Amino acid sequence: MSTHLDDTHAAGLTSWLDSANDPATELPIQNLPFGRFRREDDNGLWIGVAIGDQILDLRRVGLVQGAQMNQLMRLPREARVAIRQAISHGLRAGSPEEARFSAALVAQSDVEMSLPCKIGDYTDFYTSIHYATTVGKQFRPDYPLLPNYKWVPIGYHGRASSINVSGQSFARPLGQTKAPEADAPTLGPSRRLDYELEVGIFISRPNIIGERIPMSAAEDHVFGVALFNDWSARDIQGWEYQPLGPFLSKNFASTLSPWIVTIDALAPFRKAFNRPAGDPQPLPYLDSPQNREAGAIDIELEVWLQTPAMQQAGSPGERLTRSNYADAYWTVAQMVAHHTVNGCNLRAGDLFGSGTLSGPAPDQGGSPLELSHGGKQPIRLSNGVTRAFLEDGDTVILRGYCQRDGFSGIGFAECRGTVSPAQIESYM
Amino acid sequence: MSTHLDDTHAAGLTSWLDSANDPATELPIQNLPFGRFRREDDNGLWIGVAIGDQILDLRRVGLVQGAQMNQLMRLPREARVAIRQAISHGLRAGSPEEARFSAALVAQSDVEMSLPCKIGDYTDFYTSIHYATTVGKQFRPDYPLLPNYKWVPIGYHGRASSINVSGQSFARPLGQTKAPEADAPTLGPSRRLDYELEVGIFISRPNIIGERIPMSAAEDHVFGVALFNDWSARDIQGWEYQPLGPFLSKNFASTLSPWIVTIDALAPFRKAFNRPAGDPQPLPYLDSPQNREAGAIDIELEVWLQTPAMQQAGSPGERLTRSNYADAYWTVAQMVAHHTVNGCNLRAGDLFGSGTLSGPAPDQGGSPLELSHGGKQPIRLSNGVTRAFLEDGDTVILRGYCQRDGFSGIGFAECRGTVSPAQIESYM
Repeated sequence: MSTHLDDTHAAGLTSWLDSANDPATELPIQNLPFGRFRREDDNGLWIGVAIGDQILDLRRVGLVQGAQMNQLMRLPREARVAIRQAISHGLRAGSPEEARFSAALVAQSDVEMSLPCKIGDYTDFYTSIHYATTVGKQFRPDYPLLPNYKWVPIGYHGRASSINVSGQSFARPLGQTKAPEADAPTLGPSRRLDYELEVGIFISRPNIIGERIPMSAAEDHVFGVALFNDWSARDIQGWEYQPLGPFLSKNFASTLSPWIVTIDALAPFRKAFNRPAGDPQPLPYLDSPQNREAGAIDIELEVWLQTPAMQQAGSPGERLTRSNYADAYWTVAQMVAHHTVNGCNLRAGDLFGSGTLSGPAPDQGGSPLELSHGGKQPIRLSNGVTRAFLEDGDTVILRGYCQRDGFSGIGFAECRGTVSPAQIESYM
Repeated sequence: MSTHLDDTHAAGLTSWLDSANDPATELPIQNLPFGRFRREDDNGLWIGVAIGDQILDLRRVGLVQGAQMNQLMRLPREARVAIRQAISHGLRAGSPEEARFSAALVAQSDVEMSLPCKIGDYTDFYTSIHYATTVGKQFRPDYPLLPNYKWVPIGYHGRASSINVSGQSFARPLGQTKAPEADAPTLGPSRRLDYELEVGIFISRPNIIGERIPMSAAEDHVFGVALFNDWSARDIQGWEYQPLGPFLSKNFASTLSPWIVTIDALAPFRKAFNRPAGDPQPLPYLDSPQNREAGAIDIELEVWLQTPAMQQAGSPGERLTRSNYADAYWTVAQMVAHHTVNGCNLRAGDLFGSGTLSGPAPDQGGSPLELSHGGKQPIRLSNGVTRAFLEDGDTVILRGYCQRDGFSGIGFAECRGTVSPAQIESYM
C-alpha cells in the first residue's frame, strides 16, 4: 500500500526556494505534484513538478529524457519513488544541487498548463454512498439505493476526448429533452446544467489483458490524484439514459486540475476504511487488511461558485459546499481490483473519476442537483442571487487540501471551468 | 453524402493481379480496404490496402509517408478519395504503374494483421430496433421498447483498451453475479457469455469541441466500416448495470476485423432509409434528404460458430444467423450528428459500434441472448450439440458482404475470436 512514510514527508523539511516555505502554499516540498506545461516562447509540452510558485522542468535536471508523461507514469512504483526522492533532495534547503535545480525553474505565471497526460480510457465510478442515496431518492423515493450498491463499485465508461484542463470554458450543450406532459422531445440548450465534485485517479503501471490486479498490488498501479469536475446536463440525462446509461449528458466537457498529486505524496493522509455496522463486508477480491487499515484518503474538498456579478465585483466567489474524499464507500484500491477482475486492461494515463463526492450532511452535496433538491429549492447565495442549476457565465472552482497534525499540509491547486452561452445560431 | 460513384466502382474494372479478379474474392479492385500489418522480419506496423490475396504497402508506393493510420484517416474527404483513385489506377490491368506497385505487394499469408488504427474513444450505439425490442421483452414484457428509442440514437461509451483484432482469444471473464434467490453475490466465471454481431464505424475528420456536425456533412467525418464483435457477459451485466449501464460485462474484450472498408467503397451499396409508417419522423437535426434517399448501407451479415468438435473435425463451423445492416433504425450519419449535437468532439480513429444487428425475423437475432430466448431455448446445431451461451473453445466468426446487380461484390474478410477457459487459479 501507499502508506509508506519517508523523509520526503517530514514536516520540518524546507526548500531553498522561499515560496515553497510560505505557510499558505499548497505546493511545499512535501507535495511535488506532476503536470505538463508550455512556455510562452516554445510550442512544446514539458513535464514539470510544482514547487511554491515555480515549476521544476524535469528534463532540465535530467530526471526525464523526453516529454512523454505517460512513459514516466508507467514506471514501476520503486522508480517513481526514486524520482520523488531525487526531486526532494535537489530542492531541499542546503542541497548541493541548488544551482542546477534553480536553473531548471520556470515561474508558474509564465506558462500555460495542459492536461497532465494523454488519457486513454476514462471510467467514472459512483463511490459516494451519500450521493447515490440522495440522488436515488429523487428518482426512486422508496428504494433510493439499488441492491447492488454495497457489493459492486458501480462504474461506467466516459468520454476521454472532451476532458480539458482547469481554466477552460465550454458552451452550454444542446440536447434532446422531453417534458413529462409533451408528446415529443425538442432540441435545445440544457436548462439543468450541473457540476459534479469528483477526484480523478490516474493509472500508472499497465496490466495486460486477462491479468487481474489484486488488492495487495492495486495502489502500485496508481500514479496519483487530481480534482475533477464532471459537468452534467440533468435534463438531457433524464431523457437519454435508459437503458444504457448517461451519454451526451456527460460527454460535452469535463475539467481536470493541472497537477497530479502522487499516491506517494498522499501517504501521510491515509485513513482507516471501515464500513458502517450492519453493512455487508466486501467480497474477498475487494478486501484486504491494508485497505481496512488505510484505504481511505483524507482530502478536504470544496466547491466555489463565482457568478458573473461576483467576477465583476472582484469577488473570488462563494463556497457552496465542503466534503471529504474519505467519506467515499469504495476506495482507490477497490476500484482498481474491480475494474480488472474480469481481465480488463488498464493503461498508463487512464483516468478514473470517483463519482460525485457528497458528504453525509445535507449541505455536503457534491452537485447542485442535490443541494437544490433536484432544482426545487434553489441555493441562496450571500448576494441574494439564487441558483437551482448553473447559468451562463458561472465559474465553478473545485479545491482540495490534505492536513494532518505533525505533517505539512498539501493542496491540489484549483480546478476551474466556466459555462459559456449555448451556440445556437445554426439550429434555432 | 457518400453515394458518389466514380470509375473505381465500375464492375468491369480488373487488376493485373490475378487473385483480385477471382470471382470468389471479397477483395477485388473495387474494394481496397485499409489496415495495418506487420511483416515477419520487421517489428514495424505499416499501412496497407488489401487486394486479392496480397497487401499493397502504401509507403512503398509513396502514397503515405509514415505509418500513422490516424494521420491518413484525418485527411479531408477529397484527399482520401484521391488516394483511393491513385491506388485503383495503379492496380488496374494495363496500368503503367504495374511494376512499381507490384514491387510493393506483400502476401496476406506472410503478415500479421494489427488493429487498423489507434482507437481514441469507443462509443457503442443500439441502432437495431429489432434487437432493442427482443431484448427489451426479456426484461420488460409489457413495454419492450422504451419511450426514447424512436427519438434518440441511444449510445454509451465503451472501453477502447480491450479492443483487439480478429484472431484473438480471450479468457472467459470473472465477475460478480447474483442468483435471484441468493442473499449475496458471488465471484466466478461468467456462465452466460454472449457474442454481439455489430459493425464498427471509424471516424476520420475530427471536429473541435463545441462544433456540431450537421447531417449534411456527417459522412465526410467517417472513414469506413469494419465488422465488430462486442462480447458480453449477460449474467455480470444483469447484476451490475443499474443505474449507470454496462461496464465489466462488456469491457473484457471486443474483436474487430482487420480491414476498414472505406465509406467511399460502399457507395454502390447505399439504400433508401425510411421509417415504418406510423413512426415519428426524426427531429430536424437527425434528418436530411440524403439520409432518407441513401442513408442505409446494404451489408449482408453472418455469424458462424465453430465449436471445438467442429474444429477437430476440420469443419469451418455452422452459420447461426444472417441479418443486414440496412435494417438498422439509425444511420451512420445520424450517429455522427447526434454524438456531436452537444459539442462533443470526435477524433480520427474513434470507433462507433452499431449495436447488435438483428433482423426483423426471429432467426435473425444478432446474439445468442436472442436466438436462445435468454438461454431458455438453446440453439440446436446440426451435429446435435446445443448452445444457450458460448462454451470454452468456441470460435465465433462474423462475415459481411455487399452485393448489387451491376456492381462487383465486396466483402469485409472475417472477424474471428475464441473463448478460452477462465483463469481462476488465483481466485478459487
